[in-house]
Amino acid sequence: MQSKSFSIGIDIGGTNTAFGIVDRRGEILFQDRIHTREYDQPETFIEAIRQHLAPHIDPLGKDHFSGIGAGAPNANYYSGAIELAPNLSWKGTIPLRQLLHDAFDLPVTITNDANATAIGEMIYGSAKGMKDFIIITLGTGVGSGFVANGQLIYGHDGFAGELGHVIAVRDGRACGCGRKGCLETYSSATGIVRTALEWLEQRNLAAEPGQPDWLQTVYANSGEISSSGIHKAALAGDPLAVEIFEFTGKILGQALADAVAITSPEAIILFGGLAKAGDFILKPTKKYMEDNLLAIFKNKIEIIPSGLSERDAAILGSAALAWG
Amino acid sequence: MQSKSFSIGIDIGGTNTAFGIVDRRGEILFQDRIHTREYDQPETFIEAIRQHLAPHIDPLGKDHFSGIGAGAPNANYYSGAIELAPNLSWKGTIPLRQLLHDAFDLPVTITNDANATAIGEMIYGSAKGMKDFIIITLGTGVGSGFVANGQLIYGHDGFAGELGHVIAVRDGRACGCGRKGCLETYSSATGIVRTALEWLEQRNLAAEPGQPDWLQTVYANSGEISSSGIHKAALAGDPLAVEIFEFTGKILGQALADAVAITSPEAIILFGGLAKAGDFILKPTKKYMEDNLLAIFKNKIEIIPSGLSERDAAILGSAALAWG
Repeated sequence: MQSKSFSIGIDIGGTNTAFGIVDRRGEILFQDRIHTREYDQPETFIEAIRQHLAPHIDPLGKDHFSGIGAGAPNANYYSGAIELAPNLSWKGTIPLRQLLHDAFDLPVTITNDANATAIGEMIYGSAKGMKDFIIITLGTGVGSGFVANGQLIYGHDGFAGELGHVIAVRDGRACGCGRKGCLETYSSATGIVRTALEWLEQRNLAAEPGQPDWLQTVYANSGEISSSGIHKAALAGDPLAVEIFEFTGKILGQALADAVAITSPEAIILFGGLAKAGDFILKPTKKYMEDNLLAIFKNKIEIIPSGLSERDAAILGSAALAWG
Repeated sequence: MQSKSFSIGIDIGGTNTAFGIVDRRGEILFQDRIHTREYDQPETFIEAIRQHLAPHIDPLGKDHFSGIGAGAPNANYYSGAIELAPNLSWKGTIPLRQLLHDAFDLPVTITNDANATAIGEMIYGSAKGMKDFIIITLGTGVGSGFVANGQLIYGHDGFAGELGHVIAVRDGRACGCGRKGCLETYSSATGIVRTALEWLEQRNLAAEPGQPDWLQTVYANSGEISSSGIHKAALAGDPLAVEIFEFTGKILGQALADAVAITSPEAIILFGGLAKAGDFILKPTKKYMEDNLLAIFKNKIEIIPSGLSERDAAILGSAALAWG
């Protein structure tokens, strides 16, 4: 049955697109990346990927490839298209599956990037052997993939797993989706920066002499704050930065407690830029999730960091889509 | 393969327990019920069920029964036990599967009552042919069953589907589970009564002469309000009663919008006492769900009343657990 030895994984992000050739043991035989934004048209973008991969496909023999799996924001498993993706510069509906099929003449499966990562974690990472788990990607936005009974939940129309858009704070922060208070406006890499900017503004007005002011200083000097900057400040002992992580984890933990009530997972895996802050984000997330869990779920659910590098997980997960 | 023609369905509720013998076409050949609270011990309760059923099993031949399915509050599919059920008078952990097996010497499968109803709707009711839907039972509490990829989501420990205990209002009403603001404190038969009592108290203090006062009068005369009383008042044109349904549906609709973002269902089926209020509850629930949905889900998801009678759905769903 397993006559095909290789598959191609493509992870399309708003900034970078990574792709690679993977074998059945999860070894990445080749990988490379291009800048997504450099391509005005999806067609030239796909052609660039083809040109990078072709020299590595031919020596292995195209007949030995089971297919292509691609993860992309708002990519729909059923329709095969990317629909209304706010983080991509190509507008409207992009027939990704058809474009890839035309370019490579191989079977193509697509899904959203968080779902692809969930499959990568299930087959090769922290969720190996688990049948019920949630993966949360804390990047520019908040993505999620829900696995139940060992299967990814795609939902009726292929758009399941939008935990980033549950309402964390009713009438809260404006979200790119047009609504207010979505989880991702608080607990993503951009959400934590919004918190920092809000709090710095408030505290600047009432600055107390002698308070530790790592973030204050950075902000005063540059006017800019990044999520990794907040992480550095926390590492340096800035109590405001630690408090910002605490708040970010509180909002995330509360939302996770509600998600647990619905799917009752064995574990929740945190992935992506913000998850790199380790215990600064893991500990408050765990604490506030536990505080908000229904009694029957307490002290049962692990929150664990991803077992794969960010780059590998997306390629492995996307490629795994193609094993079928 | 389908050598066994009959199965037994048992629906254990806090007040009544219904049970019946079902054939593969969903015909209920016999059914009866007993009062759950009359039995101090689970053993005498099971024995009473056995005595009612035995005279109807024997003529059909026990060899033709595939087994017993039972739905009960907090019943765990994996452990086979009822655990910490606040609406049952038997305390602690009740080994329901074992007790039923000892009494009937047939294979036994158990799950919670909302999950059993979901299976009944999927096989015989409004969700026939659907692979991704949510069933919400609006009774004393709010129960739910989530079906994805054609399978009920039990979760890692068998307790999935507790939508009644997502936090609808942060720091809101005290819930029987010990936490605050759970959906079921607002959008259940008991929740709507709490809303009515709160609002009547408030408005009594500031009663305006000449306002329609069906509910006010009932309350002043009896000191008691029921969810069916609020329904009657709404039918009689009492604007306060209509407003109470509007509020109840708003809280439910908001919670459903978040649930949709997670599992992306084709339809949501409303079931149970409060769902009998028809458009009074369906319309505001639908309106506020739509208002709160992420754009990709808008105008796609049906909210429909159950296609089965309350009594039949639970027996049929429980019995269907036993088809295996």
